[in-house]
Order: sequence, then structure tokens, then C-alpha cells
Amino acid sequence: MARILTITLNPALDLTVRLPVLCPGEVNRGEALYVQAAGKGLNVAQVLADLGHELSVTGFLGADNPQDFETLFAARGFHDAFVRVPGQTRSNFKLAESDGRVTDINGPGLDVSSAALDMLLAKIPQLVAGQEAVVVAGSLPRGVTLDWFVELLTQLKQQDAPLVLDTSGAALHAGLQVAPWLVKPNLAELAEACAVPLASPAQLAVQAQCLQAMGIAHLVVSQGAEGLCWFAPDAHWQARPPPVEVVSTVGAGDSLLAGMLHGLLQGWPAERTLRLATAVAAQSVGQLAFGIPDAAQLARLAERVEARPLAGASTTDNNKIS
Amino acid sequence: MARILTITLNPALDLTVRLPVLCPGEVNRGEALYVQAAGKGLNVAQVLADLGHELSVTGFLGADNPQDFETLFAARGFHDAFVRVPGQTRSNFKLAESDGRVTDINGPGLDVSSAALDMLLAKIPQLVAGQEAVVVAGSLPRGVTLDWFVELLTQLKQQDAPLVLDTSGAALHAGLQVAPWLVKPNLAELAEACAVPLASPAQLAVQAQCLQAMGIAHLVVSQGAEGLCWFAPDAHWQARPPPVEVVSTVGAGDSLLAGMLHGLLQGWPAERTLRLATAVAAQSVGQLAFGIPDAAQLARLAERVEARPLAGASTTDNNKIS
Repeated sequence: MARILTITLNPALDLTVRLPVLCPGEVNRGEALYVQAAGKGLNVAQVLADLGHELSVTGFLGADNPQDFETLFAARGFHDAFVRVPGQTRSNFKLAESDGRVTDINGPGLDVSSAALDMLLAKIPQLVAGQEAVVVAGSLPRGVTLDWFVELLTQLKQQDAPLVLDTSGAALHAGLQVAPWLVKPNLAELAEACAVPLASPAQLAVQAQCLQAMGIAHLVVSQGAEGLCWFAPDAHWQARPPPVEVVSTVGAGDSLLAGMLHGLLQGWPAERTLRLATAVAAQSVGQLAFGIPDAAQLARLAERVEARPLAGASTTDNNKIS
Repeated sequence: MARILTITLNPALDLTVRLPVLCPGEVNRGEALYVQAAGKGLNVAQVLADLGHELSVTGFLGADNPQDFETLFAARGFHDAFVRVPGQTRSNFKLAESDGRVTDINGPGLDVSSAALDMLLAKIPQLVAGQEAVVVAGSLPRGVTLDWFVELLTQLKQQDAPLVLDTSGAALHAGLQVAPWLVKPNLAELAEACAVPLASPAQLAVQAQCLQAMGIAHLVVSQGAEGLCWFAPDAHWQARPPPVEVVSTVGAGDSLLAGMLHGLLQGWPAERTLRLATAVAAQSVGQLAFGIPDAAQLARLAERVEARPLAGASTTDNNKIS
């Protein structure tokens, strides 16, 4: 198994409250509260840990409320390389009603100082040494400029480990220019970052071709319940998950990314990678937690994934890291 | 100044999120998050500390999230005698919109085991020794039966320190039978606990007479912006606060209770006690935090309190603890 570093610049404490019905302006009784140390890079790390990998985690963490994060790192055996910064890591409230409606209230995040930015950049060479992949995932907190983000990605790309990027908006737009080894936007995020409509499969294929010409080896475009399109160097694939009962779609894209990276690092045939990644995402949709609680259920889901080559693929393709 | 013990059986982490408008089912941006270790007994303790007293605090605290409470105890110099129990202390979410509307979502609390109940009872004699007052305030968590609560109050009453009770519902109904030295319900809580309508001042006076006949020396009935009625052993008073801009009414009753106890412990004349207590409550309404941030402002508020005797009072009354 591999040594992997995930970078979460803007982690969040997810506080999910279940309640029958939300009555604004009233006193509501919450039935259950579920607290999760989260953030895309940390979600990816949890799934990768369940797939057997050895994780280091870094990014920025508020010094005032690190406890839930530190508990997670200890429980998962993550090497904690987060830079502590003054203040509170943001809290995201999710009010989940029994009819499935969810109201999100996302708290203000940290304001990262230039001293903290310098500190993280200075740690990168030492942190990346010996890693077999580096994942940068999630949004940017206040204080993190696009210039600094591009500098971070550029430094990471200069190291030996393949660079994986999952972000959105201006950060994705800027990050694409660095040409990471693998990028996993969803369809809307990709359309926004590239400022092109991607309504048809043909439009997506053209855009993928442009991005691959820039040096992005793998473009994985997630499409929710529709599954995903994977533009690999020598083949294009499409996969669709089996229907599952939705508990929470939070973290489904992170699970997909972890599954893709796992198959690629293992040198699996494309179809096997695709089935696993799609199944991990489908399983995550049926639970609140991040990770793989039931390997047997995962295997059953993987069997039921519809995976088909779009172009150039043979089922014996071996997508080793090039 | 006095040594005072406050008992908070069901503390809460108050998480107040400010946001422009709450849109259910949408992703909302919170502008600020304010985290407070709270619970009636702890709120009372904070105001008493600001009035110069030496506080010990006990009750039940979840072992999974004690950090904000421990930080408060350290900052305030409280002697921490809380019994740690497995699980999370409940979180209460307050979504405060810019038009003043507040949506409360109160989380489920701890489930206290009988072993933890025994542990707290066993600590009582040692905890109460040397205290000049004991305040029991707030609701009961799951696992705390009314029988156990009455046993706790009975044991406390057997000690030398005067016993103060502020709770509601079935707990207040049960607690009244123990005849604490001072009880501070609001009008609705008292009406519910006594199962009588208290719509008129005359009805309230009759009910107060019954409760005082049972051995309750002081009945303080808070009525929000209307102020309070205080039925002391030898006089009845009414006080009305000056109008103040409302930021949050959370903790106003706790502030009132702390102010009353302070004046009584100091042996102040009734009117001085009443003015201070009403002013402390009025000040608390203008802020989110618990405590007395500005003694000069408090003095100005106290001057503007309307205090008048209802019956039997003279302005030189000295309500020493009897």
C-alpha cells in the first residue's frame, strides 16, 4: 500500500442535527447531533485509510477548536502535519429534516496570515518526501490568495509524487493551469472553471481533450447519481452506480476520488478501478460517516456498477502511473 | 464575599450563528459563530463571579466535549467538580437572523447512568462544606429521575447553606415540595408547576402565600420586560427594568437570580438588592455573553429601575438570611 499526503486548506467541523421539521423562529427539538471533523482532503484521507494506505494530513487548522480533528487523526493513525493558526476552524451546520430536506449554514472560516502561508510552503519538501501521491482538496480559506495556491501546486508538481486536485471555482480555474496529474471536478464545477457550456457528452469530450493536451493525465468528471466520466491518457470510460437510498451526498465526490486514486496506485485495469471508485461513492451516499464500513457490501455494489468504455479502451488496459 | 456552589445537571454548549436571513432547504452563509459553555447554573456562576464571589461548579459533563467548559472554568477560576459521564454534553443551536428572529434547535442531552447519579450524591457533603449558598439551576438530563432530584435537593437542604432553585416543569413541581430557601421561576413556569392560573397579581399573591407557608422564604417571579415580583419573608416588592435594546434574552433570568442572591448574601436592604438584580438582568439582555462587563453601566441601569413595595415593606428592610 502507498504513502499518501492530503492537503486540506479549509477544513470544517460538520455539525449535523436531525430534527422532524424545522420551524423558523421557534424552539425546535433536535433528535440527534452528529459531529464530524471534515473537509475534502480529510474525507479523502479517511477513505484511503480504509483502503489500506498510510496517510499524512496537512493544511490549516484553528488553534481554538482542534480537538475533534486531533481525535480523528489519532483514531485513524494519520500523521498530523496541520499548521495551527489563531481562531476557530469553521463550523458547518446541517439541519436535516425527516423529509430529507437539508438546510446548510456555513460558518465563516479562518483568516490565514501570510506567516502561516509561508510556514506551510516551507514544510512541503519535507512533507512530500517519500509520498506516493499528494491530494489537494477543498476550498480556500480567507487569506489564501490564488497566487499562493498556484505557488503551492507548482511546488508540489515539482516533487516526484503525482498530484491530485479537487477544488472548484476560481481555485480550480487557477489550479488547472498547473496541470495536475489527476483532476476531479463535477460537471458544473468544470463548466464554471473553464467558462464553457458542457451540456452534451461531445462538449465534455472536447474540453477533456484540451485539458489533457495541457498535461492533465486523468480527468475524472463526477455527475452525481449519473456516475462519472473518466478521461484517462489512452481511454475514456463511463460508469453509472447502482441505485442506492440516499442518506447524505456529502463526501460522495471525495469517496470517488479516493477510489480512483487507489486503483491507479495499485495499477489495476481501468474497469476494476472504475467499479471500485463508483461503488465507494455509492456506498458513501448511504451513510453519514466517511469511510468504508462494510467491505462485503462494497464488493456487491462494485459488481452492480455499469462501466463501459467510451473510446479507446480495452478491458485489459493497465493505467499505471506514467 | 461568599463561597457559592452552583449545580448544573444539564449544561449545554450554546452555538449562536448570526446570518442575514435563514432560507430553509438552502445553503446559508453564517456571518459569525459564537460558542458559549452554558447552562443555567453556569450562567449564574459567571454573574456571581463578576460580583466578586468564589465559585465551585458541579453537575454532569459529557466526557467527549468538555473543552469549552474547561476553558471557561479556568478563565473564571471556578473550582471544577463536574462529574464526567460518557458522551457529548448537548449542543443548542441558535440561528439569529438580522431582523431579530431566532430559531432554536436544542440537541439531545446526555443520558446519565445510575453510577454517575450515585457519584454526584456521594460528593455533596464534601462539596457543600464551607459554602455560603448552593444554587441548583436548569433542566434535568435523561437518566435523572424526579425521585433522584428530590433526594439531591433534600440532601442539600440538610446542609447549612441556603438552597436556591431555578428550574421548570416537573422538576420545579417536585422541587417546590422540598421548600428551598429561594425559588426563582418565571410566571409561566410557576403557573405550570403549581397547575394554577396566575393571570392576576392577586392570584400570584395567593400562590406565593401558599409556597411561603410551605417554608420557601423567598419567591422571586420573573416576568421578562415587566420585571419581577419578589415575595420575601416580611415584604413583597415589584421592580421594573428600564427599557433596553434586546440583543438576547438568554440568561436574563440567571442574571436576575445571581443579583438577588448577591444582595441577600450581603445583607443589603431589599430595595438595593432589587435594583441591582433587575439591573443585572437588564444589562444581560443587551449582550450575548454572561456576566457584568461594565460596572458603571450597571450602576446607571440600577438607578433607573422602578422598585416599589407591594405590601409590608419598608425601605430599610434588611433581608438577612434567616
